[in-house]
Amino acid sequence: MNLMYEGKSKKIFNSDKNDEVIILFKDEITAFNGEKKDFIKDKGRVNLMFTRYFFEMLSKEGIKTHILDYVDKTKLRAQKLQIIPIEVVIRNYAAGSICKRLGLPKGLKFHPPLCEYYLKDDKLNDPMIYKSQIKYIYDITDEELDIIEKTALKTNSIMSFYLEQKNIILVDYKLEFGKNNKGEIILGDEISPDNCRFWKKGTINSLDKDVYREQKGDLISSYAELAEILGVNDEI
Amino acid sequence: MNLMYEGKSKKIFNSDKNDEVIILFKDEITAFNGEKKDFIKDKGRVNLMFTRYFFEMLSKEGIKTHILDYVDKTKLRAQKLQIIPIEVVIRNYAAGSICKRLGLPKGLKFHPPLCEYYLKDDKLNDPMIYKSQIKYIYDITDEELDIIEKTALKTNSIMSFYLEQKNIILVDYKLEFGKNNKGEIILGDEISPDNCRFWKKGTINSLDKDVYREQKGDLISSYAELAEILGVNDEI
Repeated sequence: MNLMYEGKSKKIFNSDKNDEVIILFKDEITAFNGEKKDFIKDKGRVNLMFTRYFFEMLSKEGIKTHILDYVDKTKLRAQKLQIIPIEVVIRNYAAGSICKRLGLPKGLKFHPPLCEYYLKDDKLNDPMIYKSQIKYIYDITDEELDIIEKTALKTNSIMSFYLEQKNIILVDYKLEFGKNNKGEIILGDEISPDNCRFWKKGTINSLDKDVYREQKGDLISSYAELAEILGVNDEI
Repeated sequence: MNLMYEGKSKKIFNSDKNDEVIILFKDEITAFNGEKKDFIKDKGRVNLMFTRYFFEMLSKEGIKTHILDYVDKTKLRAQKLQIIPIEVVIRNYAAGSICKRLGLPKGLKFHPPLCEYYLKDDKLNDPMIYKSQIKYIYDITDEELDIIEKTALKTNSIMSFYLEQKNIILVDYKLEFGKNNKGEIILGDEISPDNCRFWKKGTINSLDKDVYREQKGDLISSYAELAEILGVNDEI
């Protein structure tokens, strides 16, 4: 396979078709903009398993996602997307950077949920950006930005509803979107405990990457606990 | 007079009336969050002169401002306001922090103008905040925030129109609002070359505090040049 791009947690390979790619989920983990960095056996496989669980859930509810099928336990086949260089962050409760930035108490509930945008730009340190400012950075219409915001909020309703039934709180998470070769806005990247915060209901006990960020225990055990609660497995 | 509060560029004194204050414009100047600091003779008087010019312009167009009258050339009498801890920044062109933050070229035109919010909090380094997040920091309704945004954009139309006729470009500026004892949202603080960027039309030649920030010459000469162009004087 021909490597197209390597990111912090994924490798993207050209496929035999022009409009498809193969995405491999790596076992590397990083935090604090790459300052903290480790290799955690099985993380790639486990995150692909969660991504499959959430993307299938969203797909059934009519959200367009990039995933086409699964090659093996660490690789999936996806539509090739022109990536929109924006991270969309949905927040249901205060945690992480927003507490530090605005001095808000961890666990404060946001109603309605917040939808924040960050420019994907390592040199600029991924700055926060207003929705109205994105068009000065990247060629995108107001209608396309509205599709992104509506889709992001819809994913939140769908996932929060499912997780609530399993006594898991969806605290916040990051989404990425791209455009496929028909010009459609498509949900890309992954949805896993690497880019979501999950708390056991009634607590602020993390079952997500905060276990690694804050050195609160063994990451894979926490991810496995979440998988058991959700009934997620990697049988293809 | 009884000093109530001293800020970087103003002193606020109690007045003989409970709902009024006396505001003195100081000659001190600071930049980069207080890292750069100087004393510039006459700056207070000159900034009060500009503030009077702009506030009278806005007042005639129906904007509610805190100014009641002028005590002398460096002091004005104003309504006592409960300060809303938000800086409202209006941007017509890219300059200053937004260029650094988002990597935008200086002078890029924003259409429509941008309206940004920053939390006034020295400890947090005045972070940018979304309008939808302000209510989690300060007790304010969506209707009050809408009044602030509409008023800020109206000040921009009024001032840009006047300045355009004098071949001066209003690049960006910062406003502050408060609530008076009737609970009305009132425009407070000042409007001067200390908190606005002004360029000579067709250039990016500053007639504002950037002269001090970027050490581009004598500040008071630049402010005097702007005063002459605008026909501003301090006759009371």
